[in-house]
Amino acid sequence: MNILIKNTTLITLNDKKEVVENIDIAIVEDKIKYIGNIDDSFIPDEVLDGTNKITMPGLINTHTHIPMSLFRNYADDLPFWEWLHDRILPLEKNLTGDHVYWGSMLSIAEMIKSGITSFVDMYFFVEDIAKAVEETGIRSFLSLSVTDGEENIEKGLVETKKFIKNFDNRSNGRINVRIAPHAPYSCSDEFLKRLTELSHKFDKGINIHVSESEKEVEDSLDKFGKTPVERLNDLGMLDAKTLAVHCVHLSDRDIEIFKEKNISVSNNPGSNLKLGNGFARINDLLDNDINVSLGTDGSASNNNLNMFEEMTIASLINKGLDKNPEAVPAYKALEMATINGAKAINKETEIGSIEIGKKADIILIDLNKPHFYPRYNPVASLVYSAQASDVDTVIVNGDILMKDGKLLTIDIEDVMKNAEIKAKELLDN
Amino acid sequence: MNILIKNTTLITLNDKKEVVENIDIAIVEDKIKYIGNIDDSFIPDEVLDGTNKITMPGLINTHTHIPMSLFRNYADDLPFWEWLHDRILPLEKNLTGDHVYWGSMLSIAEMIKSGITSFVDMYFFVEDIAKAVEETGIRSFLSLSVTDGEENIEKGLVETKKFIKNFDNRSNGRINVRIAPHAPYSCSDEFLKRLTELSHKFDKGINIHVSESEKEVEDSLDKFGKTPVERLNDLGMLDAKTLAVHCVHLSDRDIEIFKEKNISVSNNPGSNLKLGNGFARINDLLDNDINVSLGTDGSASNNNLNMFEEMTIASLINKGLDKNPEAVPAYKALEMATINGAKAINKETEIGSIEIGKKADIILIDLNKPHFYPRYNPVASLVYSAQASDVDTVIVNGDILMKDGKLLTIDIEDVMKNAEIKAKELLDN
Repeated sequence: MNILIKNTTLITLNDKKEVVENIDIAIVEDKIKYIGNIDDSFIPDEVLDGTNKITMPGLINTHTHIPMSLFRNYADDLPFWEWLHDRILPLEKNLTGDHVYWGSMLSIAEMIKSGITSFVDMYFFVEDIAKAVEETGIRSFLSLSVTDGEENIEKGLVETKKFIKNFDNRSNGRINVRIAPHAPYSCSDEFLKRLTELSHKFDKGINIHVSESEKEVEDSLDKFGKTPVERLNDLGMLDAKTLAVHCVHLSDRDIEIFKEKNISVSNNPGSNLKLGNGFARINDLLDNDINVSLGTDGSASNNNLNMFEEMTIASLINKGLDKNPEAVPAYKALEMATINGAKAINKETEIGSIEIGKKADIILIDLNKPHFYPRYNPVASLVYSAQASDVDTVIVNGDILMKDGKLLTIDIEDVMKNAEIKAKELLDN
Repeated sequence: MNILIKNTTLITLNDKKEVVENIDIAIVEDKIKYIGNIDDSFIPDEVLDGTNKITMPGLINTHTHIPMSLFRNYADDLPFWEWLHDRILPLEKNLTGDHVYWGSMLSIAEMIKSGITSFVDMYFFVEDIAKAVEETGIRSFLSLSVTDGEENIEKGLVETKKFIKNFDNRSNGRINVRIAPHAPYSCSDEFLKRLTELSHKFDKGINIHVSESEKEVEDSLDKFGKTPVERLNDLGMLDAKTLAVHCVHLSDRDIEIFKEKNISVSNNPGSNLKLGNGFARINDLLDNDINVSLGTDGSASNNNLNMFEEMTIASLINKGLDKNPEAVPAYKALEMATINGAKAINKETEIGSIEIGKKADIILIDLNKPHFYPRYNPVASLVYSAQASDVDTVIVNGDILMKDGKLLTIDIEDVMKNAEIKAKELLDN
C-alpha cells in the first residue's frame, strides 16, 4: 500500500537530528520512499493528515516479556523473592500456549496503542507469541528464555536452534529471532559458551538479564570471583552481538568492558525502581558513549508497556541523581526510545529513524490537547508533557495498525475479554 | 442537581480504606448524600453508569502555579539559574492579567481532563486566576505569592489582606484564599512574622516553598545559622496552618520539627527531579507519620499537570531510593494524591474522600483499556498502570465538569488557540 503523510511536524531521529515542520512523507509498500514536499505524481492509496501532529519513528521496546500482562497488578509492593517465588512462578508453572497467546495479544494491543512498533521479548511458548505477532502486524525480536539450572544443556540449545530455524525472518521480516540465556546466575559457563557459539553460527543477537539486583552481583563475586559482566566477558559472550538488559549494578570496570566491547544496554527504569533494585548508572554509561536503549520489562513489574513513561522517568531520575537538569535531556531520552533501540539490536539501518529507504515504522502524535500548548519544542513536549494515549496513528512495515486511536488489526474487546478469562483460569488452577 | 452513579467500583479513601464493588452513589446538590444500593425513591437529574469504571475522590494538586502553562516546553534541560533568570523571569516581567487568565484556563482544562478537582496555587494576578476558576467550576485554594525583597513589607500584607477580603469563600466555596510568602530566602524575618499574624487573624493557611534546593539551605545556614525550617519554626510560622512545599533538602532535625508541629509537606517529585534539585526524603517523612501530599508544580518545570504521573514517580523513586519494593505502596500514593492533600490544607472534613456529607468532588476512571486488564487490584492499576487520559468523568461541588472525556464548562479549542496567541505575544515583547 502507498501512504502519504501530509503536512506534518517530523522528528526524524536521523544522524543530523533534523526536526522539520510542514513536510510530507511518502511510503511505498514497506518502506519510506520520499521525504519533502510531495506533488501529485505520487498516487497514494491512503492520505494521513499530519497537521497538528508530530510524526516520528515508532518506539522500540528493547526488553519485555509480553505474556506477563496476565499477571499485571496481581503482585505489587512485595519483596522481590516473595513476588517471584510466591506469586509469579506458581502462576507461570500453569501457563499453556493458549494463555501466552492471549497475554501476548493483550500486550501487543497496549503496545500499538502507545506507539511501540518493535519489541524485544524473552519468554517461553514462543510459538504462541509469534502467532500473535503474525496476526497483529507488529515487528518483533523474539527469543526463548533458556537456563540450564534444572535441565541439561542440550535441551536449551536444541530448542533455541529449532526456534531460529522455524521462525526467524518470518511474516515479511516482522518476526526476528534472537538468543536469550536468562541470566548469568541461572546459566552455567558451558551453557553460556555454547549459546555464544550459536550466536556466531546463526548471526543472531543475544539478550540477557545482567546485574539487575545487588544480590546476584554479590553471589557472582562469591562464586566466581568476578562480576557477572566480567564473567560474561571472560566467556566470550561480549564479543557476540549481545544486548545487556537492566545493568543496575555495574562496577567502573564493568562499564569499561561494555565500552571496549561496544555492548548496548537496555535500561528499564520503571521496573528497576518498582522491584526495589535501584537506579542504573545511566549518566556514567552515557559519559562513556555506551549505547543505552529503553525497555518496559514485563507488565508484572511495571505495570504497563508505556515507553512514554520510561522516557520521562529515565530523563527525570538521572537529572535527580546527578543534581543536574542537563542530564538525559529530552532529545537523548527520545533517542533511547527509538534509534538507540535499533542500534541495540543491530537494526539501525532498517528501523529507529525516519529516513528514505528505511522500513515504514512510523507513529503520529495528536497535538490537539491542552498539555501540548503552547508550542515551543516538540521534542520536550513528547518527553515531558505527552501521554501514551496521545499516539493517534501507528504504521508498521508500511501497514496502518492504528488510525485515529482505533486498532485496525485487533478486536480489542475480544482480546480484553479473553485475557481476563485466561488470567482467572490461571488463578483457579 | 441530583446525580446517581450506578454500579461502580468505589475507592472511598475513607479511614477504613474501603474499596467496594458494584455500589451506587447519590449526589444531591453539592454533596454526597448516600452510598449503597440506591432504589427508585431517589430521583436523579442525571445517571452516570459506573460499570467498568473506578469511582474515586478527585485528585488534589497541592502545589502549582497554573498561569505558568504559558511557559511549558519553553525552557528545558537548563541549569536552574539560567532557566529562572534568562528564560522564565524575563517572560514573567511582561505578564498581564490577560496572559494569566488564558494560562489559567489552559491549565484548568488540563487539570480537569486529568482528574484534578482541587488545586493550591501561588502566583500573581490572582484576580485573573480566580476569574478562570469561577468560570470553569474547579475548586481552588489560591494565594498571592509575596516577597519583600524589593518592595516594602506593607505592600505584600495589604495586597494579601485585600485578596482574602475580596475573594475568599467565593463561587459557592470553590475559591478559597491562602497566604503565600514565596520562600524563606526571599522574605525577611519581619515579613514572615507579620504574614503568620495574618494567618492567625483570618484563620487562613499558609503555603511556602521550603528547602527546594541545596543552595538555599546552605545560604540559610550561612546567613542565619539555621536551616530554613529551623528559621520558620523560630519565627512561629510552623505554629500556623502551614503547608511546606518541596522540602527536598531536610535535616533530621527539620523532620523532627515538622513532626512536632504537625506540618504537612507537598511533595513535587517531577519538578524536583526535572530542575535537578534531587530526591525528597519521603520515606523518612512517612516513617515519622508526617502528612505528605502531592503537587505538580507549574508546567514550566514539569511539564504537565498530571497527578497520575506524580503518583507513579513518587511510588517508584522511593522504592528505588530505599531499595525496597514495599516503600510508598500504591495505596499510600493514592492517599497522597487525595485525602492527604485535603489534610494538607485542613479541608479533610470536606474533600479528599468519598463519604456521606462530603462535597461531591468525584472522578470516574474508564477501565475499558488494555492496560487495565486483567482485573486484580484497582488501587495498583491506578498508580502503576493508568494514564491521566483514562479519567472519563469529573464532578466538582456536585457539578459535572467533564463527561465521557468531554469538557462541559470550557471551550477547549478556544482556550488552546488563545493560550497559543498569548504565549507568542510574550515572546515577541
